[in-house]
Amino acid sequence: MNKRRAVYPGSFDPITNGHLDIVRRALSLVDEVVIAIAYNQEKPSGLFDVAERIELIRAVTAPFAKKVKIDSFHGLLVDYARKVGAVTIIRGLRAVADFEYEFQMASMNRHLAGDVETVFLMADEQYFYTSSKLVKEVMSFGGDASAFVPPVVAKRLRKKFKS
Amino acid sequence: MNKRRAVYPGSFDPITNGHLDIVRRALSLVDEVVIAIAYNQEKPSGLFDVAERIELIRAVTAPFAKKVKIDSFHGLLVDYARKVGAVTIIRGLRAVADFEYEFQMASMNRHLAGDVETVFLMADEQYFYTSSKLVKEVMSFGGDASAFVPPVVAKRLRKKFKS
Amino acid sequence: MNKRRAVYPGSFDPITNGHLDIVRRALSLVDEVVIAIAYNQEKPSGLFDVAERIELIRAVTAPFAKKVKIDSFHGLLVDYARKVGAVTIIRGLRAVADFEYEFQMASMNRHLAGDVETVFLMADEQYFYTSSKLVKEVMSFGGDASAFVPPVVAKRLRKKFKS
Amino acid sequence: MNKRRAVYPGSFDPITNGHLDIVRRALSLVDEVVIAIAYNQEKPSGLFDVAERIELIRAVTAPFAKKVKIDSFHGLLVDYARKVGAVTIIRGLRAVADFEYEFQMASMNRHLAGDVETVFLMADEQYFYTSSKLVKEVMSFGGDASAFVPPVVAKRLRKKFKS
Amino acid sequence: MNKRRAVYPGSFDPITNGHLDIVRRALSLVDEVVIAIAYNQEKPSGLFDVAERIELIRAVTAPFAKKVKIDSFHGLLVDYARKVGAVTIIRGLRAVADFEYEFQMASMNRHLAGDVETVFLMADEQYFYTSSKLVKEVMSFGGDASAFVPPVVAKRLRKKFKS
Amino acid sequence: MNKRRAVYPGSFDPITNGHLDIVRRALSLVDEVVIAIAYNQEKPSGLFDVAERIELIRAVTAPFAKKVKIDSFHGLLVDYARKVGAVTIIRGLRAVADFEYEFQMASMNRHLAGDVETVFLMADEQYFYTSSKLVKEVMSFGGDASAFVPPVVAKRLRKKFKS
Repeated sequence: MNKRRAVYPGSFDPITNGHLDIVRRALSLVDEVVIAIAYNQEKPSGLFDVAERIELIRAVTAPFAKKVKIDSFHGLLVDYARKVGAVTIIRGLRAVADFEYEFQMASMNRHLAGDVETVFLMADEQYFYTSSKLVKEVMSFGGDASAFVPPVVAKRLRKKFKS
Repeated sequence: MNKRRAVYPGSFDPITNGHLDIVRRALSLVDEVVIAIAYNQEKPSGLFDVAERIELIRAVTAPFAKKVKIDSFHGLLVDYARKVGAVTIIRGLRAVADFEYEFQMASMNRHLAGDVETVFLMADEQYFYTSSKLVKEVMSFGGDASAFVPPVVAKRLRKKFKS
Repeated sequence: MNKRRAVYPGSFDPITNGHLDIVRRALSLVDEVVIAIAYNQEKPSGLFDVAERIELIRAVTAPFAKKVKIDSFHGLLVDYARKVGAVTIIRGLRAVADFEYEFQMASMNRHLAGDVETVFLMADEQYFYTSSKLVKEVMSFGGDASAFVPPVVAKRLRKKFKS
Repeated sequence: MNKRRAVYPGSFDPITNGHLDIVRRALSLVDEVVIAIAYNQEKPSGLFDVAERIELIRAVTAPFAKKVKIDSFHGLLVDYARKVGAVTIIRGLRAVADFEYEFQMASMNRHLAGDVETVFLMADEQYFYTSSKLVKEVMSFGGDASAFVPPVVAKRLRKKFKS
Repeated sequence: MNKRRAVYPGSFDPITNGHLDIVRRALSLVDEVVIAIAYNQEKPSGLFDVAERIELIRAVTAPFAKKVKIDSFHGLLVDYARKVGAVTIIRGLRAVADFEYEFQMASMNRHLAGDVETVFLMADEQYFYTSSKLVKEVMSFGGDASAFVPPVVAKRLRKKFKS
Repeated sequence: MNKRRAVYPGSFDPITNGHLDIVRRALSLVDEVVIAIAYNQEKPSGLFDVAERIELIRAVTAPFAKKVKIDSFHGLLVDYARKVGAVTIIRGLRAVADFEYEFQMASMNRHLAGDVETVFLMADEQYFYTSSKLVKEVMSFGGDASAFVPPVVAKRLRKKFKS
């Protein structure tokens, strides 16, 4: 029997507890989750480079390493999903603003690949108002947002902003 | 290997094309979908009684009868989900108004049963603004809302409103 | 040349300054606005009966009486629109909650009658948070909500709640 | 110097942890909070009667009893606020749906009493999706929603639904 | 008798089926629609230059060429509307996010020119989640978004992204 | 007895009537409002520099100068609030889009400083759809948005855009 495989795409710059919560929930649904970092090869951007992001994701998903693959991609998400044999795209939903953007993407992806279904999971309430962007902003000013990211990520963020 | 089973709860009074679309999408995700009619045994309500609703659901899900169970329940959804061995609850998302209500329910269900995950699927755009309620309202005035329900349901609705 | 005619449906129980604002704006768009009170003949409801509502609308629309017709209807709005030769339905938009309900109705009406277009006008900000319902609630407790309704309506409301 | 006094209106049927969280936050802002149960003397409704609701609020606000008054009122909130010498109305905000309703009420209250300001506080995330209504619904089916209400309220709810 | 004329402003970079749907609906309301490309003469931007956008709009509106004018403008929309003798601004509404931005603009435009009314039309559901931006993004990655634009636009997009 | 002090942070580039409305409302709540211009010392931006913004705020808050302090800060808002001895952060709420962003910030600020409470006030309806950004955009095109800013600010804006 084939493994059910899902892609969880994002920028993960860096991975937060909210992302990790979605990964865990997704694993109750499918056999394998491919955490896929979307990047633009012509215009690399972000605080961490792709290799660092992968390293951090690897560290924090170690407890369920057998059921998680970590990768990066550019181009169309549905092309990538098909390439890795995934028929499910996982997205975390938090707020109303997310909702409309996510539906626009899901609608286009459904048009492009009718066999790939987008599945929305609800992040835990405690992560509802967290985002990588806000965590970085706070830590760049010396604030302590370590509660919103795994310890290893917090450590790395502190290092980034000290240097 | 155990079957992955999901509960898709609702009132289905009657089942619409939008519901059917969600059932089909859910079947790409799990091995079996239990369509579960929520009812209040002390205060029965609705246009169709539970037996009629089941009959209509059975008729329109015949093409994938092997992967669909039809049932009714009252009480807590998570208790029912556990009873039938489902670890996934399927909900269709359409509009922002849905979103907040659904998140409230999902949050409470997660609290009541941490092992049962709510999964949101996006209905097809053409069903975004349909509801059983609106279809019934239109047909009660002699309007033709048959495009939003399977033919057998349309026929039964016309009969209801003529008698 | 045919007159362009629009239907502005509602319960108008009673007409408020917000409704009147929409009527005025609609008149810049079409030649004639039919203010149409939706009612349920089997279950009459509301503070004012249909005859009173018509009387109040007549009084407050007197300055543009030549371009306004006042009527009541039950059944499908699009059937009524066609009967009176209107190809436009006017709706006032205020808040996000309005928005989704209005789109559901507009979508169904477009399905039922592709030749009847729903047009949304934005109420003036000062009327954004007014509704007949809230005005009645406040005045039933002796509060002064007369700023939100025409003087003749305020007078009639005070009378209703004193008796 | 005059005490700053705020009214925190609601039905409190019964008081939840979310309500209590708002009371605590309000006390950082004003000297005294009047928790005011809105009731309709002609049509009493709710699971608990007003006396029971007061008793439960008293029990759970005991730790800051000196800074809390508990009362009930009917009629216009702004009339009540003025009667008790409050120039601030406290409201908890949770979701977008709340937002529009609350703004409608705040707008009307500002119109009725320009000297009484509505102040919105954000409930803690863990209470974002709780409501008295949902807690009662779950407990009526034997579910354990005790995490969302103070222990004494949970006990009373269990008693209500057993009898 | 004067023609009723409406301005339909936008960037149209390029025109989509959603835009075309709004143009058609607007023509049921007014005698002439001026499709007006907003541009910034100091900072030209976009995939297509203004001349190309006009050419594409001309091609796809050919079937109702007599009732459509195509133009470009910079500066205030209401100034432009008055210059071309239009008393109506047409805007398509899709999502809640649109809604607030559109109301902000309509409110300001109403302030600047009380005689120019903004009219909102609802795009067909199938175009609800399309935008020029998303279509361009997908086609830049080789995805087939041709269903969302007229054939001549799809062809031109493919050419752009191949070169 | 200690003064109750609140921080009202923003970019105030420039101060609008909407901001001023929030300041006035905040003064009914606390003894002193610190209007605090957030700026980024490494990347100064905006139409007015910080000194000009302070000058304009000073001019328009002159009538309640005793209860208002004007300052600028960079870094974390909660650090600044503590430094000036404020336990309250004032934010104006207008639209749904505001709402989610504001809650994200309030949630993070509460995490960073549990003793600093964010309080939301509702701007007057007439300022609901105004923003510094839109006022500047309109005036840069020669439009008259002077109704949305105090006279001295309007004058200064006109001067900016003429030079």
